[in-house]
Amino acid sequence: MTTTDIEQDLTRQQDTFREGLEANDWLLPTLGDGVTGLGPQAEDVVQGIASAARGIAARLSPEAGTRRLRFPPVNGTRLLERTDYVASFPQLLGTIAAFEGDNKAHRQLLATYEEQGDWSAQLTPAGHALVPAVCHPLYAYLEGSRVDGTVFELVGECYRHEPSPDPMRFVTFRMFEAVRIGTPAEAAEHREKWLAAGTGLLTNLGLEVQADTANDPFFGRAGKLLSAGQREAQLKFEILTEVYPGHPTAIASANLHEDHFGEAFDLRTADGAVAHSACFGFGLERVALALAAKHGFDVAAWPASVRQELGLS
Amino acid sequence: MTTTDIEQDLTRQQDTFREGLEANDWLLPTLGDGVTGLGPQAEDVVQGIASAARGIAARLSPEAGTRRLRFPPVNGTRLLERTDYVASFPQLLGTIAAFEGDNKAHRQLLATYEEQGDWSAQLTPAGHALVPAVCHPLYAYLEGSRVDGTVFELVGECYRHEPSPDPMRFVTFRMFEAVRIGTPAEAAEHREKWLAAGTGLLTNLGLEVQADTANDPFFGRAGKLLSAGQREAQLKFEILTEVYPGHPTAIASANLHEDHFGEAFDLRTADGAVAHSACFGFGLERVALALAAKHGFDVAAWPASVRQELGLS
Repeated sequence: MTTTDIEQDLTRQQDTFREGLEANDWLLPTLGDGVTGLGPQAEDVVQGIASAARGIAARLSPEAGTRRLRFPPVNGTRLLERTDYVASFPQLLGTIAAFEGDNKAHRQLLATYEEQGDWSAQLTPAGHALVPAVCHPLYAYLEGSRVDGTVFELVGECYRHEPSPDPMRFVTFRMFEAVRIGTPAEAAEHREKWLAAGTGLLTNLGLEVQADTANDPFFGRAGKLLSAGQREAQLKFEILTEVYPGHPTAIASANLHEDHFGEAFDLRTADGAVAHSACFGFGLERVALALAAKHGFDVAAWPASVRQELGLS
Repeated sequence: MTTTDIEQDLTRQQDTFREGLEANDWLLPTLGDGVTGLGPQAEDVVQGIASAARGIAARLSPEAGTRRLRFPPVNGTRLLERTDYVASFPQLLGTIAAFEGDNKAHRQLLATYEEQGDWSAQLTPAGHALVPAVCHPLYAYLEGSRVDGTVFELVGECYRHEPSPDPMRFVTFRMFEAVRIGTPAEAAEHREKWLAAGTGLLTNLGLEVQADTANDPFFGRAGKLLSAGQREAQLKFEILTEVYPGHPTAIASANLHEDHFGEAFDLRTADGAVAHSACFGFGLERVALALAAKHGFDVAAWPASVRQELGLS
């Protein structure tokens, strides 16, 4: 097949999968490009995966313990600066604009709307932004504190501005993350243990997966160098599965941040050294959809072992 | 006390409560004004309330059944137009801005950021907006369909741009909603049954509550008339509790929309008439905080009956 043939074939597979997901109430259309709701079965499976992940977190809990925290999908715009997100991934971020005008400004806004113009261009920055990764609010929360190798367990919603016809790519999606902040050895150990345990869970769920080095989509020309460096240093691993034969999709990732966040948020270990961090994350909707691709749209008919692993029977 | 004395006293009570919530890991500061994370106990209580609410939904399920759907915190900006939100509550909405420039535009963005300017003002509307009420995405999803009195059970995240030092007022918060769309009688029956059951649950949780007619915060001068009309027609009820003695706060609400959403989204009953709708919602974080105010910050020490109602023992 030529490159064009391969691309057309992939697009056809994506369209067929999306149509199946929508026809079987797994995905619910919204008015937002690339934004989708979930039907009852998909949501049950998402909750089941999160629950199985909590089981791993309990099993792997280190001596310093595991803490379950929860951050909302919105944070300060300043978080995007502090994590370097605006420098590294501007193409994916989303900030929030609000209306702070009076009656007269509101009449203008409504006039623009009546003329079918883009009234949202008349709004002003609210100081809030969408959270692009579930662990970012954590570092800001811990700013300036001593860390001891505790694992933080987080489930939250991410926004990334990359609307796509591929149903596996969500603009807004949930991640389960297990984050450890401590010594370089603790961070490295965390990444390794979770990469193995995460691969194990996905395999038990009947998925054919493989882990591979990867890179984040750093922006622009300078970003190409950062991507190559990240890949060479093996800082990022993804767990991939072939929802579309021949085209692997990442459904989980394991990242070593070295001292990136420790430096940015002044996180230090007991000896005063800058802390290292590592995180492991499941893309909850992606894992759920990969399971639907593998086992079909009727969860009641899934293998008993899979249902049991998800706490569904 | 004079009005100023009363206001100062309320501010003091809010500050004391917020300090207690933060000192006891119930609320976690973020970089966003009015945005807060939740610690382990608060999150357990939130999940417990949602679970108790699902229990009510199962008990009250009508003949047409109950469907559990899930919509993300983001939707199309167009949803704010279609629900009349931009006309009625512009002061509360949030739309999303994204970066769609090239390398050069990114350098400009970063230069603004280096100079500590507001780089987010250089972004462009993304076509996405935050969802202000959990039931709004549902009407858009059902657009143009026949409805039969099914109840829809939703848990989701809302954004309302009203940062406040009062810890009971969240910029971003979760709601459990039970929504019924059908005949005027079905909608009215739903509102009545849930108002009683919701009041019952909150009372069983040890809260002193009372239901009262209320109005939404319609914007501007014209909004005053709409508010008065809504109150007079008894379309909105709130369940209130006094976290701050003498100052009731709403922790749940029950709304009759008449044909507002049925008309806007062409929802019709079997006989072709425009459907009516009603929703009941618990503000999950607000109920959790009201429970902390009542029973203290140590959930393990709460009355056994309360823990049992929340599935915590």
